[in-house]
Amino acid sequence: MRVEIVCTGDEVLSGKTINTNYSHMARRLQEVGIDVLWGTTVGDDRKSLQEAFRLASGRADAVIVNGGLGPTVDDLSQEVAAEAAGVGLILNEAWLENIQGFYKARGRVMPPNNRKQAMLPEGSEFIDNPVGTACGFAIDIGGARFFFTPGVPREIHKMLEDEIIPRLLQMSGEQAVVRLKRFHSFGLGESRVDDMLSGLEATAGGQVKLGFQAHYPELETKLLARGPNSAALESLMAPLEATIRERLGSYLLAEDMASLESVILAGLRDIDGTLAIAECGTHGAVAGRIVAADDAGAVFRRGGLGASVKALATALDIPDADVSATTAARFAEAVKATSRTSHGLAVMIPPGEEGGAGGGQGDVLIAIAAPGKPTQTRQARIVGGKDRVRAGGVEMGLDCLRRSLQGLAIDDKVDFERQ
Amino acid sequence: MRVEIVCTGDEVLSGKTINTNYSHMARRLQEVGIDVLWGTTVGDDRKSLQEAFRLASGRADAVIVNGGLGPTVDDLSQEVAAEAAGVGLILNEAWLENIQGFYKARGRVMPPNNRKQAMLPEGSEFIDNPVGTACGFAIDIGGARFFFTPGVPREIHKMLEDEIIPRLLQMSGEQAVVRLKRFHSFGLGESRVDDMLSGLEATAGGQVKLGFQAHYPELETKLLARGPNSAALESLMAPLEATIRERLGSYLLAEDMASLESVILAGLRDIDGTLAIAECGTHGAVAGRIVAADDAGAVFRRGGLGASVKALATALDIPDADVSATTAARFAEAVKATSRTSHGLAVMIPPGEEGGAGGGQGDVLIAIAAPGKPTQTRQARIVGGKDRVRAGGVEMGLDCLRRSLQGLAIDDKVDFERQ
Repeated sequence: MRVEIVCTGDEVLSGKTINTNYSHMARRLQEVGIDVLWGTTVGDDRKSLQEAFRLASGRADAVIVNGGLGPTVDDLSQEVAAEAAGVGLILNEAWLENIQGFYKARGRVMPPNNRKQAMLPEGSEFIDNPVGTACGFAIDIGGARFFFTPGVPREIHKMLEDEIIPRLLQMSGEQAVVRLKRFHSFGLGESRVDDMLSGLEATAGGQVKLGFQAHYPELETKLLARGPNSAALESLMAPLEATIRERLGSYLLAEDMASLESVILAGLRDIDGTLAIAECGTHGAVAGRIVAADDAGAVFRRGGLGASVKALATALDIPDADVSATTAARFAEAVKATSRTSHGLAVMIPPGEEGGAGGGQGDVLIAIAAPGKPTQTRQARIVGGKDRVRAGGVEMGLDCLRRSLQGLAIDDKVDFERQ
Repeated sequence: MRVEIVCTGDEVLSGKTINTNYSHMARRLQEVGIDVLWGTTVGDDRKSLQEAFRLASGRADAVIVNGGLGPTVDDLSQEVAAEAAGVGLILNEAWLENIQGFYKARGRVMPPNNRKQAMLPEGSEFIDNPVGTACGFAIDIGGARFFFTPGVPREIHKMLEDEIIPRLLQMSGEQAVVRLKRFHSFGLGESRVDDMLSGLEATAGGQVKLGFQAHYPELETKLLARGPNSAALESLMAPLEATIRERLGSYLLAEDMASLESVILAGLRDIDGTLAIAECGTHGAVAGRIVAADDAGAVFRRGGLGASVKALATALDIPDADVSATTAARFAEAVKATSRTSHGLAVMIPPGEEGGAGGGQGDVLIAIAAPGKPTQTRQARIVGGKDRVRAGGVEMGLDCLRRSLQGLAIDDKVDFERQ
């Protein structure tokens, strides 16, 4: 099935807004086995919209149009859609009441403009939007089925999952049960994991597809499967998932919607643990990531950020600090003791070497103080410029804590460090 | 002049990569007075590229093609361009030597694949790329001038500024001297500033254009002018810039490439000042932003992040802390004293109200301890969900420090707080 996405709106066309709606839609569609073959961006301009719809209807089977469903005069999607389909616009009474109710719940009266959002092309299929006032709709234009969707990200995200993807899967005639399993790892590059998992697709007789999404320093490994029903998919995927877990081993840090931070927080909550962090050279990102994920504030207690090892040593009242794993251990122990937490994590990234023939590198020194065992330390030299060293070092600090909580070795080599 | 951008590559088409190259190019072109009228995205696929070039050549005067100039077989831009222009590919000896030199400087030998990057369509105009191995080129296809550019962000950024924009301005026949002046403010919404500056364009007789880019909590006001020469532009813009400065008043925090952080750091450096920060409810972003900008590490000393006001109070050894401006003042003074800095900044954002008919709100409490004057405090209730309250509160904390350093009142109301 040939799918095209048409993004509309002056803000996207002019680059004022980065088009994350496009990438979100294309990525999600690929994850359910539907490839997007063409992307078009046009402004809030009648002629451009007409031309974009005409071209898309000639080259695609299904077209998702994003944006242009708002209440203002520059929102033209319904109007141009009706014209292109050769029909008029009629009022959808039920949706008008819905919009009025939306305003009433907020103690306001619907502005007259918003009536426009309930005007849909005659004969079009209504598509619900439970989180906004712009409903979607579907209609045939030329040889293609057009799906009109709102431009507000959380509205299109929901409509895509609940309404558009099911319709596209049905149209595509593919077996409609699709499952996407995601594995998150740190320390292994994309080509390395590709090698480690080679042969896996073949064992499933072409029913599964492996994909990768590298967002340094993490790598996401995606296993996509399609089958006649859920039970068949389960029995197809279970052994494959077990193989991936086994091969990724200690590098596997989380699955599906879980994250490194959520795994750490869950691990600490399981033992009624609490955490304090001392860091320098990190831009405060170690504590920043944990505190952003610790919704209840039940685990994280405090973080100390120093401009340098020396500034951090002064703050923690530690004399004679040098740039060493021993100092990191003293920091982790000190921050644990003064914060009265079960765990202390120290991450130090002293200034590294920029550029040069090798492309730069930098050290990271990590220590974890935990109850009932000696303080663990880890030291690595990460390859890259300062942003890459910092991102890798922060991730490594958090990952060492994850490993420590899970009883794993914390010194397995990662692909990003000097070997 | 009608301009189109064609983005190529499977990574962009599939959404794996967010297409920031497009938004960067379109925004920069608009800033020099050139509007992009159409955007196309296609994959590394010969037929799609042929069709995209054919369509673009029929509707645009100038087309920027981004991506597809790499050394691998899936990079097809030169080949399809030559075919579309009806010419062959020939080796650009000078560029081949340049690529070989690039590798040699890194102690490596050029892989044979890279020779492909020096094969350009016959009769095409060479476009230099001083920061990579993919040169650009320009060639006429149908009625349009096509500019082929590399997909690596820093390469296209540089080529756009140095090579493409000058050529487009010349093509457009517009007066080629263009100047863009940028003002950054915090606390005023886009429509408010639009009102405050109304009439400004008219006074310049249509030679300038005002534009806005809101990236909450900051607003960027752009003044674009075009004239016959630099001297004329200077005398046109100087009084307009003065008017904008006067009208934005204390809300103006930086101009052009400067940022709130860089202005604060410069202000502190001017008085040999140093800074310590205590914060909670901020995800550590107050210190995070400062330390990220403090390249030399000469100003920022340390930051303390608490999971709550209480956790922060424990860390700073302050008994009986409550959620008040008085407590914020004690925190600022404590962190200044224990860190032995000239300035202490405290920002507290206790949990706010989520959602509801009002859409949520949250308090922010700020204090600044500075040498030789009483500690200043500021309290505000910011409107919005928790992410918006946090971003607004962090910005307000930093902006109060900027105001304090510049001798301005720190309690001017902002549009984002409950009035």
